Amino acid sequence: MIKTDILIIGAGPVGMFAVFEAGLLKLHCHLIDALAQPGGQCSEIYPKKPIYDIPGYPEVLAGELIDNLAEQIKPFEPGYTLGERAETIEKLEDGTFLVTTNKGTEHNAPVIFIAGGLGSFEPRKPPIPGIANYEDNGVEYIIRDPEVYRDKRVVIAGGGDSALDWSIFLADVASEVSLVHRRNEFRGALDSVEKVAELAKLGKINMITDAEVKEIHGNGKVESLGIKHKTDGDFVKETDHFIPLFGLSPKLGPIGDWGLEIVKNAIVVNNALDYQTNIPGVFAIGDVNTYPGKLKLILCGFHEATIAVQYAYNIINPGKRYVMKYTTVNGVTGFDGETKKAEAAVVKSIG
Amino acid sequence: MIKTDILIIGAGPVGMFAVFEAGLLKLHCHLIDALAQPGGQCSEIYPKKPIYDIPGYPEVLAGELIDNLAEQIKPFEPGYTLGERAETIEKLEDGTFLVTTNKGTEHNAPVIFIAGGLGSFEPRKPPIPGIANYEDNGVEYIIRDPEVYRDKRVVIAGGGDSALDWSIFLADVASEVSLVHRRNEFRGALDSVEKVAELAKLGKINMITDAEVKEIHGNGKVESLGIKHKTDGDFVKETDHFIPLFGLSPKLGPIGDWGLEIVKNAIVVNNALDYQTNIPGVFAIGDVNTYPGKLKLILCGFHEATIAVQYAYNIINPGKRYVMKYTTVNGVTGFDGETKKAEAAVVKSIG
Ligand SMILES: Cc1cc2nc3c(=O)[nH]c(=O)nc-3n(C[C@H](O)[C@H](O)[C@H](O)COP(=O)(O)OP(=O)(O)OC[C@H]3O[C@@H](n4cnc5c(N)ncnc54)[C@H](O)[C@@H]3O)c2cc1C
Ligand SMILES: Cc1cc2nc3c(=O)[nH]c(=O)nc-3n(C[C@H](O)[C@H](O)[C@H](O)COP(=O)(O)OP(=O)(O)OC[C@H]3O[C@@H](n4cnc5c(N)ncnc54)[C@H](O)[C@@H]3O)c2cc1C
Repeated sequence: MIKTDILIIGAGPVGMFAVFEAGLLKLHCHLIDALAQPGGQCSEIYPKKPIYDIPGYPEVLAGELIDNLAEQIKPFEPGYTLGERAETIEKLEDGTFLVTTNKGTEHNAPVIFIAGGLGSFEPRKPPIPGIANYEDNGVEYIIRDPEVYRDKRVVIAGGGDSALDWSIFLADVASEVSLVHRRNEFRGALDSVEKVAELAKLGKINMITDAEVKEIHGNGKVESLGIKHKTDGDFVKETDHFIPLFGLSPKLGPIGDWGLEIVKNAIVVNNALDYQTNIPGVFAIGDVNTYPGKLKLILCGFHEATIAVQYAYNIINPGKRYVMKYTTVNGVTGFDGETKKAEAAVVKSIG
Repeated sequence: MIKTDILIIGAGPVGMFAVFEAGLLKLHCHLIDALAQPGGQCSEIYPKKPIYDIPGYPEVLAGELIDNLAEQIKPFEPGYTLGERAETIEKLEDGTFLVTTNKGTEHNAPVIFIAGGLGSFEPRKPPIPGIANYEDNGVEYIIRDPEVYRDKRVVIAGGGDSALDWSIFLADVASEVSLVHRRNEFRGALDSVEKVAELAKLGKINMITDAEVKEIHGNGKVESLGIKHKTDGDFVKETDHFIPLFGLSPKLGPIGDWGLEIVKNAIVVNNALDYQTNIPGVFAIGDVNTYPGKLKLILCGFHEATIAVQYAYNIINPGKRYVMKYTTVNGVTGFDGETKKAEAAVVKSIG
């Protein structure tokens, strides 16, 4: 069982920054995320796009923002449970919470921060009969470890950036990469589209356009796919893996059943005080919460996280008082004891 | 008379960022500040010190943060009234506000944002009889334009960074620089102290330590100072300028008399909704406001500014509805019509 002070569900930018603010108050955090990497929407949907409204950044790529947040929170050594969805919550007799993931990993903490954004990202699955039987047996919707595909035959389906980028990447790893798309046109970054075109010409990516995967065959694991071509008719393609990359759609998911007050798919919090939900000890910050005038902006989530952490401190250390100190004046001391600090002024005589 | 949509009193980091958020909603802003430059506490008190808790910045110098904010808000062309203190506010018949500074400059706007931080910075004045008569006649507490001192004799008093840094700077401008300090020890950045020691050795700064300026003499303007030395007795020093640099202390000042609800030197706002004060149309953001759980942090002020701007929009454009759009998706269009925008995805066929 993983134990921590604040268990944060959702490792988007807001959950990440909560680790920093908690660390300043000497509280430890652990993050759970359904995705394979931290960063939430910024990493998953638009890592290479610029954001213009992060205060103090006239322009920053979403992916860079996440890298900088990762660097900022490093001194406070957050734990991570990645690629797992928080599924159930239970209040234990000692007043702490037990949160279990879909893979059975158990987490225990006195305070829960839900920073789940628009919800956990779930892959959009193509409507192929029996596809569920092949999941993790040759069908993967998310690529967690590219090495799995080394020297294997891979069929990727999709027409956007993910399909393009993974085709490029796996062209050097897999023994054969085929890219199946319903239409002849792809929608993505210019350099990705051009790179795929080039690799297709070199025979390193096998383009199958105007076509759709309609059937999966195999004995317990994927062996071949039934593909329907718009004009050329149906054919069978042998492969070891089928990777449909039709995007991810966020779903509030299991959190919706935790007894929290929910309005329009978001969790109601007390924004006049502490961003706590109707369940004492459970806070909600970032895109996942709602209150009068709520804006789903990253900078707002940063503030919410900072305020919520102060109240979490009171729950975790009842009776103790924490007096906020400026980082500039006090520096930042990581859990390994190392301190970053401004150079002190000297007091020195002259002449 | 200066007219604008949102008149912002205080050009600290929070007032500055409000210009950006207002600009996204096509609202124009004008900033008033008692100091000669924007940036508030960051520029005035600790420009060369690192801040560690600006989200996405593991470390940023306070002065750099202000430079970046200035760059970020540039597309929205804020107006500035610097070196003047907002003194009075009056509600006009048409419902708009008239704000007048201590120098008589008039500003008119339908919405006021008070972003006054700890108050307007007022210099700490030494208790020398009749000093007020010489203010702006040879006595200056703030250096606005160093060229005023070219080829003049200057006496600076103080023992901190300002006194050290201006002594260094003016050593190349004035015909003579004397630095008077009550003690023999100075408190400041190591390199400033060392530089002053070096210039003193070269005879470019005349050090007068263990001494205090006690009298000012002159006919309408400063001609000489009476200086009291701890052990050597009193003497008279001829000079054209006397610049006491004993730091600035913030005073809520005239804003305290505007009929706003004030608790412990801060303005009470409705943090559950819009950060509006008890006077409709007047908002307070950043260090200057208070509410349950308030933290005087820069990142909190950024959020408050962002929320307040949305409600200001409703006052300025009654009946119109603004739908927030992501800067990443919509880009940022300055008032000169120029747009910064992410590269669009291409739609292209392959093979
Ligand atoms: C194209 C685009 C452009 C944008 N542009 C801007 C912009 O310019 N400025 C701006 O401020 N914002 C912008 N946004 C919005 C911004 O990305 C979000 O406000 C921000 O990501 C919210 O952060 P968060 O940490 O609250 O949630 P998210 O980033 O959504 O992260 C939440 C995380 O929680 C995880 N999660 C949820 N439920 C569970 C569960 N049960 N178990 C495990 N994990 C779970 C999810 O997998 C996800 O990783 C944009 C968004 C998009 C899509
Ligand atoms: C040494 C030090 C270290 C700090 N470290 C940190 C840190 O690590 N992290 C952090 O988040 N914060 C830190 N702070 C606090 C941070 O600087 C403030 O929260 C921030 O400056 C507040 O911004 P603001 O825009 O609200 O107000 P301010 O920066 O105070 O600016 C207000 C401006 O309003 C002007 N003004 C006020 N009244 C009037 C008037 N009537 N007419 C004209 N002008 C007026 C003032 O002259 C001033 O320039 C630190 C502060 C200090 C002093």
